[in-house]
Amino acid sequence: MARIVLKFGGTSVGDIDRIRNVARKIKAEVDRGNEVAVVTSAMSGATNQLVKWVNEIAPLHDAREYDVVVATGEQVTIGLLAMALQQQGVKARSWMSWQIPIRTDAAHTKARIVDIETADMARAMKAGEVPIVPGFQGLSPEGHVTTLGRGGSDTSAVALAAALKADRCDIYTDVDGVYTTDPRIVEKARKIDQVTYEEMLEMASQGSKVLQTRSVELAMNHHVRVQVLSSFDAAVGSDLPGTMVVDEEEIMAQGLEKSVVSGIAFSKDEAKITVTRVADRPGVAAAIFGPLADTNINVDMIVQNVSLDGSSTDITFTVQRADLARAVERLERAKVDLKFAEIKADINVAKVSVIGVGMRSHTGVALKMFETLAAKGINIQVISTSEIKISVLVAAEYTELAVRALHTAYELDAA
Amino acid sequence: MARIVLKFGGTSVGDIDRIRNVARKIKAEVDRGNEVAVVTSAMSGATNQLVKWVNEIAPLHDAREYDVVVATGEQVTIGLLAMALQQQGVKARSWMSWQIPIRTDAAHTKARIVDIETADMARAMKAGEVPIVPGFQGLSPEGHVTTLGRGGSDTSAVALAAALKADRCDIYTDVDGVYTTDPRIVEKARKIDQVTYEEMLEMASQGSKVLQTRSVELAMNHHVRVQVLSSFDAAVGSDLPGTMVVDEEEIMAQGLEKSVVSGIAFSKDEAKITVTRVADRPGVAAAIFGPLADTNINVDMIVQNVSLDGSSTDITFTVQRADLARAVERLERAKVDLKFAEIKADINVAKVSVIGVGMRSHTGVALKMFETLAAKGINIQVISTSEIKISVLVAAEYTELAVRALHTAYELDAA
Repeated sequence: MARIVLKFGGTSVGDIDRIRNVARKIKAEVDRGNEVAVVTSAMSGATNQLVKWVNEIAPLHDAREYDVVVATGEQVTIGLLAMALQQQGVKARSWMSWQIPIRTDAAHTKARIVDIETADMARAMKAGEVPIVPGFQGLSPEGHVTTLGRGGSDTSAVALAAALKADRCDIYTDVDGVYTTDPRIVEKARKIDQVTYEEMLEMASQGSKVLQTRSVELAMNHHVRVQVLSSFDAAVGSDLPGTMVVDEEEIMAQGLEKSVVSGIAFSKDEAKITVTRVADRPGVAAAIFGPLADTNINVDMIVQNVSLDGSSTDITFTVQRADLARAVERLERAKVDLKFAEIKADINVAKVSVIGVGMRSHTGVALKMFETLAAKGINIQVISTSEIKISVLVAAEYTELAVRALHTAYELDAA
Repeated sequence: MARIVLKFGGTSVGDIDRIRNVARKIKAEVDRGNEVAVVTSAMSGATNQLVKWVNEIAPLHDAREYDVVVATGEQVTIGLLAMALQQQGVKARSWMSWQIPIRTDAAHTKARIVDIETADMARAMKAGEVPIVPGFQGLSPEGHVTTLGRGGSDTSAVALAAALKADRCDIYTDVDGVYTTDPRIVEKARKIDQVTYEEMLEMASQGSKVLQTRSVELAMNHHVRVQVLSSFDAAVGSDLPGTMVVDEEEIMAQGLEKSVVSGIAFSKDEAKITVTRVADRPGVAAAIFGPLADTNINVDMIVQNVSLDGSSTDITFTVQRADLARAVERLERAKVDLKFAEIKADINVAKVSVIGVGMRSHTGVALKMFETLAAKGINIQVISTSEIKISVLVAAEYTELAVRALHTAYELDAA
């Protein structure tokens, strides 16, 4: 007997038939003798409608009232799903986030979970009842409803699994697992059986949309074994595994051969900024990136050229495309202090990343990347690396070519 | 300065523009220097959609989970309305029923309000904040969300007005007041300026759909002055009065001439059942109506004929049309005990009622009714009376004719 948290996304509970189908999957886990708790999103489209109303009524709205409105989507699905389970003969009840409670901080619309009281829920589970919990929300210290930000239901599920000390957290979504890269671009992409938290975290933050980054961080910190699988397959969690996201030790302990590179991620959501002929003196990087940080703009890849004339240099970096206009505007305002020549912006760029914990112990991974791209005539604009990842910025038009070439080069292609 | 509770129905908050319009009405009351609390329904159609989903998922559903789902409609409107007010510069916040709390009994889907804790809310109102409260719902003793049954938002508003000791409870709806009869049938129907609780109660239970019966009972018991007015008029509560529902004493104290009859109500939602040749002995009425009461079927008008042969009689009574099939089925099952000849059912009937507190002190009111109907050739099938009401059952096809003739006979026609 295991204790499992199951999480279903918006498309999985998108209409009444799908909610019934989800109930069947839950029942299958219960029938195996497992203790099951469920976290669910709102019906797909529901949250968008609520957000649309909020924006219509007041473009600059009170974050507290936003949360009151937007949190209703999950309240609908927990009730409907509890009924669907009862209809199938499974003991179930919905638990509102304020009833449990799921305690968060007071940062409305982007709250962080602080604590979940699970004693009552664990007792109900031991008595054979399935608790159905709304994702994406909690209760602030002041007793108000909070939401965690879009996609927060994954985080709710992992946090609940951690609090319940669950053996596994199954995230049901519209894909059947994590792939070596996007199957829509590389036909030979393979589903990965097991991936480490660190790799998943890099994949999530490098543009793979399967799991929310914060949920992976949380899983890593609390050693929650996460499985990603499809809610549209007939089989359920323990039958047909999707992708397990686990500790590196767990994979090592199985004595399995792990490939050096686990996957290729890419993101077209990038913009490149070059600030030319800034003074090449200590403190100039801080003078550029300080104002951007103050404006809540995240800077990702950075490269500073060797000084051209011993007194000035060019600095190139990337930001999210959505932040480009604000970033340029902020730098122009700082021109008096920075004394640069000009700002060049380029949105026709993409970031391609090679990810794998095996890099730590294998050399030559980066070299293979550069050689592969060179062989296809792809120019590398910026490079950044971490212990388990190498990212390069290339012209956007080369994205698919680069991803396919790297997928083959690192022997990820399906047979 | 007065303390006022304003209540807005589903059509009044049916879309974003209407919610903005409602916010303007609230602001006008605030600008007059009044302390204002607001109760709102769900956007029109929202509750129906939620009920539809519930019925699709499980025809026989858990009442507790029904309430979880259906209560979300009002949670959306309280948040949106609070934002609309803030947008117009009015301090406002939404209060969930579990935050206040509005305590109810545990009768899910038809709960009754037991108590409302208003200390915090009254403090917020004194500080110039407008609390926005969801109608139709509360919190059970076990800490679960309950709903009061359809139309329960009127009851929520009156209960909140009683708890806050408000000077007035303004019910904004899609009509501009209570009329002497339905203006769609009688062109000369007049808006009534003032009506007593007792009359309003009879009108509500006799088919006038302006206010929910329970809300009128509650207003009467707690002496809450209720005003019914239209949310689509440009004017607001204190400008252009709709209909005031008040104590008889308040009307008397004004020394106003009050007409003997206040209004003519009618209902086509009736069905007549005649049980023929039942034994004319003590206890037979109980033997018929006991099983119906056990099956939760309300019996309204009753007439027992004079015994035809000294040993058997016919009993005629009315039930809600929706209950007819169940009532007949239940009586057929009791046939062994009751030993009647047959059951005759008739749905082509309507109940027409003349209502007015003046009847208590005036004679001849009933006589005028019977004469008026006779003059139009309308046969009376059943009669029932109370202190302030006379109801007759007539063939449904005569409904409009009867209502118009009575409206004229009691001098209710507008000039």
